[in-house]
Amino acid sequence: MSETSKSTPTRPKKLAGVESWDMETDVAIVGFGGAGSCAAIEASDAGADVIIFEVSAASGGSTALSSAEVYMGGSGGTSVQKACGYEDTTEDMFNFLMAAQGELADEDKIRMYCDNSVEHFDWLVEMGAKYKNSEYKERAIMAVTDDCLLYTGNEKSYPFREIAKPCPRGHNLEVEGDNGGPMLMGVLTEQVEKRPIRVEYNARALTLIADEDGSIHGLVVRIDNQERTVRARRGVILCAGGFAMNQKMLEKHVPQASIGNVPVGNPGDTGNGILMGQGAGGAVLHMNEAFITLPFYPPGSLTFGIFVNAQAQRFINEDIYHARMAHHILKQSGKGIYLIVNHDDYEHPPFLNADIAGTGETIEELAEEIGLDPDMLRHTIEFYNKHAAKGDDPLFHKHEAWLKPIEPPYAALDCTPGSGALFPYFTFGGLDTLPTGEVLTMEREVIPGLYAAGRTACGVPRTSAGYGSGMSVGDATYFGRVAGKSVAGRKD
Amino acid sequence: MSETSKSTPTRPKKLAGVESWDMETDVAIVGFGGAGSCAAIEASDAGADVIIFEVSAASGGSTALSSAEVYMGGSGGTSVQKACGYEDTTEDMFNFLMAAQGELADEDKIRMYCDNSVEHFDWLVEMGAKYKNSEYKERAIMAVTDDCLLYTGNEKSYPFREIAKPCPRGHNLEVEGDNGGPMLMGVLTEQVEKRPIRVEYNARALTLIADEDGSIHGLVVRIDNQERTVRARRGVILCAGGFAMNQKMLEKHVPQASIGNVPVGNPGDTGNGILMGQGAGGAVLHMNEAFITLPFYPPGSLTFGIFVNAQAQRFINEDIYHARMAHHILKQSGKGIYLIVNHDDYEHPPFLNADIAGTGETIEELAEEIGLDPDMLRHTIEFYNKHAAKGDDPLFHKHEAWLKPIEPPYAALDCTPGSGALFPYFTFGGLDTLPTGEVLTMEREVIPGLYAAGRTACGVPRTSAGYGSGMSVGDATYFGRVAGKSVAGRKD
Repeated sequence: MSETSKSTPTRPKKLAGVESWDMETDVAIVGFGGAGSCAAIEASDAGADVIIFEVSAASGGSTALSSAEVYMGGSGGTSVQKACGYEDTTEDMFNFLMAAQGELADEDKIRMYCDNSVEHFDWLVEMGAKYKNSEYKERAIMAVTDDCLLYTGNEKSYPFREIAKPCPRGHNLEVEGDNGGPMLMGVLTEQVEKRPIRVEYNARALTLIADEDGSIHGLVVRIDNQERTVRARRGVILCAGGFAMNQKMLEKHVPQASIGNVPVGNPGDTGNGILMGQGAGGAVLHMNEAFITLPFYPPGSLTFGIFVNAQAQRFINEDIYHARMAHHILKQSGKGIYLIVNHDDYEHPPFLNADIAGTGETIEELAEEIGLDPDMLRHTIEFYNKHAAKGDDPLFHKHEAWLKPIEPPYAALDCTPGSGALFPYFTFGGLDTLPTGEVLTMEREVIPGLYAAGRTACGVPRTSAGYGSGMSVGDATYFGRVAGKSVAGRKD
Repeated sequence: MSETSKSTPTRPKKLAGVESWDMETDVAIVGFGGAGSCAAIEASDAGADVIIFEVSAASGGSTALSSAEVYMGGSGGTSVQKACGYEDTTEDMFNFLMAAQGELADEDKIRMYCDNSVEHFDWLVEMGAKYKNSEYKERAIMAVTDDCLLYTGNEKSYPFREIAKPCPRGHNLEVEGDNGGPMLMGVLTEQVEKRPIRVEYNARALTLIADEDGSIHGLVVRIDNQERTVRARRGVILCAGGFAMNQKMLEKHVPQASIGNVPVGNPGDTGNGILMGQGAGGAVLHMNEAFITLPFYPPGSLTFGIFVNAQAQRFINEDIYHARMAHHILKQSGKGIYLIVNHDDYEHPPFLNADIAGTGETIEELAEEIGLDPDMLRHTIEFYNKHAAKGDDPLFHKHEAWLKPIEPPYAALDCTPGSGALFPYFTFGGLDTLPTGEVLTMEREVIPGLYAAGRTACGVPRTSAGYGSGMSVGDATYFGRVAGKSVAGRKD
């Protein structure tokens, strides 16, 4: 690690070695996606000078590529929730999110997120985000109409419905099709442009600049193939996304993501922000956790089916969110995961891109086609059917709305990881931060001047077991704002 | 992080701030357990001056508290394997360990470990470790006689037996009872004492000393309540154990260990070495992984039983190693794990400390006592019995040696996590290192002068799914030696 001219993210540049500053600002932000834009707006509104460094030629980040649903509620409900007849309490939202994140939950972040969620909704509206006072009632992974409110998580499924009163909290923008991401980033970009915020595009952040005590004073960026030193008097906010696009980091930290076939994110999600933070002494947290999903609906009617493993056993209630299903698929022993449905509940082609592994007029015929033990499959289907006919699922407590006997003719969709079925993924692991965005050492000491938000940090969403659409963009935009205010409030 | 007089592990002291050295040596080693002792012996034998800093008043570490079985083989077999009639090949050992560690496997470390395993056995013997040319044939978690060779992992169970020819590789010392740990550490301590190696007991390592470029030049230790600076001309080796005794780190990184009730290790396993390494820029790896086990044998006869989950389904072949069983127990949905056996296969009290949750002359009686669905339990037992009678387990491929129908009267042992059944644990996550012991940054650059071995590093054993007894002490002693040789060969 002898000093060379080449900067690497995990080796901060020494403040003493900075001969002159090429740029100076109060707040330097790495990344112009959901987190970075919100951080910039709030820091600027708090009176700070701000420069955003974006590695690509335009704003957007991974938020622009998402549906940009935002998970919001509590405090009696957002105006949309209220208009749709829902009175959402903060405690229900909090209890749900705590249960959803389970043993990985960051209580402080979840508490703050829930307490301020309606305020965040109002702020997004103030920024220009448009939400219609309407509900999208299909079981869907995203609204494809311009309707707003939809269930995007496991709220109505067991055990969550017994822990907190279910309420839809996914807020979809008023736009047809899956076009929320560009719309949200359009709105936020416009707000950035309205303010005295400088944006440097095609600017690659290389490493942080730290003093003898480890405090952060700026960063080195490469612009026009030149390394530039940037002084950030109040601090640097890393909003550079996760590492879904860094194959080496994935193999090292999230080997189970190798079953994934569609990385979700933009090409800049290389983990660079995480590496920069870690090099400056920041701790990383839950680097093994990722959103890995099997979007097995729409159509919602497939939820009437049952998932079975290689032993022809059911293993979870099928009315759960799609990433929770993938989470449980990855826990099964042996090779083979099938979604068994009655022919009439199937629509071709399925969104999840699964092949039909087999069909049958009888259970035995189906079992033979898909290579499962016929006695096991018969018992599984008959046991399920017997109870489903009574609106009951004694094993996994699937909601009665999705219970009906599965009658022949049967179809089995091949959902085996690696079979070709769609398994999108992105990363949850990142820098350990306080809710304020301050990056922590492994002993949870604050690194002065260093902040992170969005998927560069380990935020509210931490596990596929409890993820719901809108949690990542919600976390990124909300905690991006908080980080922007925090750093602006720090004295130089 | 302004500089204060108080040292914390994650804030290295600056070399420029060292006014004088209280001690000087070539190699400083933190921790006098299995890894530290072997590192010291090899470094000394390579001509380096060595000081060991041990936080407690005596040598031993967690190795002394273990059975000190060592997992060894390959190269045609150790002398014990050969005497017992086993011809073990390096490829079988390699293929087995690669499959056992699965997607987390570090191929370079496993290759080196297997290639040099017989040499390591011979070295331990040369040091004074005594192994009898005999085999312990019971299914056991440790030999309680002075016999040597035993199966300690999943070698004979599916799918591993199809991937590599099974061979016993656990080597137990020639000592009655579970007393291998004190014996091995006695032998290694004697070898350290024979050499010109200085040992400082009651010496707490506080932090590393790094230069401007991040290279390591020594460490700060507290002895007699005084902070002392130690210059290590060639390097520092962190052999300070894992973090099984650090509740905060466990909660943060290994929340699933909260089901554990017996931490395995010595009080010094506080993660201090990992924190010191991370503070100096070292990457941590697989911090979420831990050995969490349910030692459900002896008696081996319990292996004739079947494990069922809350849905009364089997979920894995029961002839596997106990930690692999716990690994799969933790994957089950719902609350309730039971080991169902015929009354005659049960011995009281069971080693695993499980309560008898229920008994029954009929399946229905048993199901009612333990609260499982009787139809499910009946199908599971009858399906198992039908095939077991033919020496077959079509679902999970349990070895035919452990297959026989389970007849009444039945007993069900409560193995539910949290029920009181024994769940010992220790941590696998640690510093990312090369096989040489050199600590790496998150970009896999070497940090000059910094080494780690034993559970302070992320070594060969990384997952309960594929652990076998003797892998941790084997990894610690072998890679301790390698690190000792590496650092001694480094020029000042």
